[in-house]
Amino acid sequence: MISITLIIQCPDQKGIIAEVTQFIYRYNGNILYIDQYVDRENKAFFMRLESEFNGDLKAIEQFQQAFADSPATKYEMTWSLYHQKKKPRMALFVSKYDHCLYDLLGRFRSGELKVEIPFILSNHSDLRSIAESFGIPFYHIPFNEETKAKAEKQQLELLMSNNVSFIVLARYMQILSSNLIDKYPNNIINIHHSFLPAFPGAKPYHSAFERGVKIIGATSHYVTEDLDAGPIIEQDVVHVSHTHSISQLLAKGRDLEKIVLSRAVKNHISHKVMVYRNKTIVFS
Amino acid sequence: MISITLIIQCPDQKGIIAEVTQFIYRYNGNILYIDQYVDRENKAFFMRLESEFNGDLKAIEQFQQAFADSPATKYEMTWSLYHQKKKPRMALFVSKYDHCLYDLLGRFRSGELKVEIPFILSNHSDLRSIAESFGIPFYHIPFNEETKAKAEKQQLELLMSNNVSFIVLARYMQILSSNLIDKYPNNIINIHHSFLPAFPGAKPYHSAFERGVKIIGATSHYVTEDLDAGPIIEQDVVHVSHTHSISQLLAKGRDLEKIVLSRAVKNHISHKVMVYRNKTIVFS
Amino acid sequence: MISITLIIQCPDQKGIIAEVTQFIYRYNGNILYIDQYVDRENKAFFMRLESEFNGDLKAIEQFQQAFADSPATKYEMTWSLYHQKKKPRMALFVSKYDHCLYDLLGRFRSGELKVEIPFILSNHSDLRSIAESFGIPFYHIPFNEETKAKAEKQQLELLMSNNVSFIVLARYMQILSSNLIDKYPNNIINIHHSFLPAFPGAKPYHSAFERGVKIIGATSHYVTEDLDAGPIIEQDVVHVSHTHSISQLLAKGRDLEKIVLSRAVKNHISHKVMVYRNKTIVFS
Amino acid sequence: MISITLIIQCPDQKGIIAEVTQFIYRYNGNILYIDQYVDRENKAFFMRLESEFNGDLKAIEQFQQAFADSPATKYEMTWSLYHQKKKPRMALFVSKYDHCLYDLLGRFRSGELKVEIPFILSNHSDLRSIAESFGIPFYHIPFNEETKAKAEKQQLELLMSNNVSFIVLARYMQILSSNLIDKYPNNIINIHHSFLPAFPGAKPYHSAFERGVKIIGATSHYVTEDLDAGPIIEQDVVHVSHTHSISQLLAKGRDLEKIVLSRAVKNHISHKVMVYRNKTIVFS
Repeated sequence: MISITLIIQCPDQKGIIAEVTQFIYRYNGNILYIDQYVDRENKAFFMRLESEFNGDLKAIEQFQQAFADSPATKYEMTWSLYHQKKKPRMALFVSKYDHCLYDLLGRFRSGELKVEIPFILSNHSDLRSIAESFGIPFYHIPFNEETKAKAEKQQLELLMSNNVSFIVLARYMQILSSNLIDKYPNNIINIHHSFLPAFPGAKPYHSAFERGVKIIGATSHYVTEDLDAGPIIEQDVVHVSHTHSISQLLAKGRDLEKIVLSRAVKNHISHKVMVYRNKTIVFS
Repeated sequence: MISITLIIQCPDQKGIIAEVTQFIYRYNGNILYIDQYVDRENKAFFMRLESEFNGDLKAIEQFQQAFADSPATKYEMTWSLYHQKKKPRMALFVSKYDHCLYDLLGRFRSGELKVEIPFILSNHSDLRSIAESFGIPFYHIPFNEETKAKAEKQQLELLMSNNVSFIVLARYMQILSSNLIDKYPNNIINIHHSFLPAFPGAKPYHSAFERGVKIIGATSHYVTEDLDAGPIIEQDVVHVSHTHSISQLLAKGRDLEKIVLSRAVKNHISHKVMVYRNKTIVFS
Repeated sequence: MISITLIIQCPDQKGIIAEVTQFIYRYNGNILYIDQYVDRENKAFFMRLESEFNGDLKAIEQFQQAFADSPATKYEMTWSLYHQKKKPRMALFVSKYDHCLYDLLGRFRSGELKVEIPFILSNHSDLRSIAESFGIPFYHIPFNEETKAKAEKQQLELLMSNNVSFIVLARYMQILSSNLIDKYPNNIINIHHSFLPAFPGAKPYHSAFERGVKIIGATSHYVTEDLDAGPIIEQDVVHVSHTHSISQLLAKGRDLEKIVLSRAVKNHISHKVMVYRNKTIVFS
Repeated sequence: MISITLIIQCPDQKGIIAEVTQFIYRYNGNILYIDQYVDRENKAFFMRLESEFNGDLKAIEQFQQAFADSPATKYEMTWSLYHQKKKPRMALFVSKYDHCLYDLLGRFRSGELKVEIPFILSNHSDLRSIAESFGIPFYHIPFNEETKAKAEKQQLELLMSNNVSFIVLARYMQILSSNLIDKYPNNIINIHHSFLPAFPGAKPYHSAFERGVKIIGATSHYVTEDLDAGPIIEQDVVHVSHTHSISQLLAKGRDLEKIVLSRAVKNHISHKVMVYRNKTIVFS
């Protein structure tokens, strides 16, 4: 028995759910869970469907072909089918901060994150020992303004040769070039250390301190060319007060960042996040 | 055009979603939203489905009849169909506390709660003026141990003659008899002023204070014969500290109670709450 | 016995707490609670102190005079002394939205807000009946661009003749002139329906919807001439998702706004909020 | 310059704050922060005071002696004085779960937890490699019913010879004997994986699942002989729904547990937690 997840996006019209479910039924699939959403303003339909099929990968391939020929074409679907036999491959980009890295690796080791991690990459070597203690290859690719293009070429080669499905910027602190972003649309997850759109930029906790806010936040989003403006996947906040120094804001922020990032990663892995017009649909 | 909400519960088996959606499609319904849940341990299937039909109430009745004959029978469904033309009728039972009453009436007046309120009932007369300021009939039915049975007869007559759909105990402070509970299974909503199952009983904030907890809660649940043990619909909490006196806990609790109760009422009205084995499925 | 609250702000230096507490002790005061905070960067000292004195108002006046002569002068304090015999007088400015008004009046009636409410003022007459049902005078002062100056003169006369201590803008929706703001520095409390500094301006929920945020907020702040940029007193947030329409965001926002505004008002009444360099110290 | 923290508990009476602050002033101390609390019902006074002294450890010792002779005796204080030169020594007891251990060690390494960790102790050897990767001695002391007494003797020897200040049970899963508890009153911190007092015992998430609660919690408390009934230091909760399986509750619980435990540990280290009649005062 194989479990699949089917992700569909198409113009809204009558009968889509009926036809898709009927189609799965005909192929002896057992639907476990459907999530769907209609953006009525834009007449757009979104669906995520989990189903079980008796049989092997070949049965899945046949279903996939038939689905492409029939409902997918009829309803002009953008769609994907994932099956549990193939774990997504997650590359981690880090810098010097270790809190998000520890959190993700802890969840990976405990089996909570069902991924493979082909490598951890950094422009600094500080976190090498953490990678090693988890038995994961670590690539140190330092660069400066001049060598950035060359470094990125190395990064791309690593990503390709390791067949990476998606990238997590676990406090990477560097701006990716559009070249790399274009290769992984809606597949690069960043954690921004503020409640976006408030306090974008490099030192958000300092800005929050200046403004005297009573709440600070963290935001995980897909990376687009427009810095800090990509589709938001997950946000959370924590209360603060006048007594908190900037370093205490930073400490509270670290706790937030790791939780928010790991939630975003988990939703991404489960194919629960769909992107439409720079916003996300996140199925629960 | 008429919008309907279809609520289904039945033993889980393959093809239910496909058949139901196909059936609606055949009757020219347009499915707007499906929520479903499978309790895999108990092999139970739950679905809530919103659909639009062109046509009038008669078309709905025909659909309803056909649905009863076919999928409902085939899959042994327990099911209900609601349509938006008919607002549910909510009776409010209160005592002397006014915070939940004000909150519900404010939401009612602003159009947030799509119900009719045939009357407010109390064993005290304290809140009569509030009822009157909102133009809602107020019935004062006092009782003591001896006259309780008679009072309940009066209550039942009021409920029946006003065609009440469900009852909200907005801090009613009295225990209902099984006679009344049986008439409204899963249709009497209570707000308990604690995070159940901790601190059941009459003075939960005092118990919370004694134990020195750092969080207090409120719980909205359906009333069953087993006091404070009915299916939980909604819970929320708020942080407290050693500095809070009991009266401050009570004040914080009032804010919680009204929010938690109104959320539960809104979910009930939208038919998003299903009960199974003394637990709820609450669709979002 | 009289309870007082003493609020002090001055340049930080050694011995302030010792001297103030010793001074109170000498006047037979019993200190119930001290809160203090030192802004080390700016070398500024802040203190809030609750104390009980045996005796009558005259004893308080004597203490007050002596305090002014001695520690207040020595340490260059900006200070105030409040005593419980004199409730602050709160004017409410409203527009057409009633949720914050109901919430504040409910808390007022239950005794939770220890204030007097001399009047409710609005540029619309929609909420007159609510004011009347609570037995509070309602002044309807409509205006347009041309008559705004005259209307404000009327407002000021009402504020003065009613000896108003502070103003709450309970979704007033109008911009106050600097003339009025200057009369009540750090004594006009506004509720902004977003998590400032994100989404300032008139339609924040629409902006939040556009950006696809997963959390919306509300912010209560003191009104300054710089719109939406005054010192923040209180903020809170609530999670939202792609399924929420703008009208659902508005409904969730209403719940937030009333809670956040009433918390800010309660802290203001208890003299727990001090303002320094456009930020607040809010003692717990 | 040396920073000290002074912790005081005594019967409430007039003039304590004045006298203590005056006393510090006389010894040329500069008070940075005072927290105090009066339990009016029980007439008990609590104070935590941070102060800076010019001079060396000897000056502190002199102050300490003088304080003992004068205010401490006069007001019948239970008191302690801590200075920043001496970091508390924290022993970690673990079992097989690693999430709390990783979280604490990550905070330790980042400098957030200002402690020394002389050793990690476990009745299982599973987590040895984690201890080693952080360069901390790991003692594996397995035991069964028969050898428990002997194992505890070994534990006590380790604690004594390492001069341990306090113990953190980071999901230790074993019940300590009163012998060990008596040696470390209010110095053994446990994390219980539920919102106590609801769901005490070994399988709280299973109980929460059974009851169908909409919120789960975690509680950190000092260990007393009465299992799960010691003074609560910190609690937090997270919302759950009918869709969460027990394993998902466990995963959400792990995130909670580590945050709640680390907050409790940080408050303990800062001497912000005082215990009185089985409840805590936790200064902010």
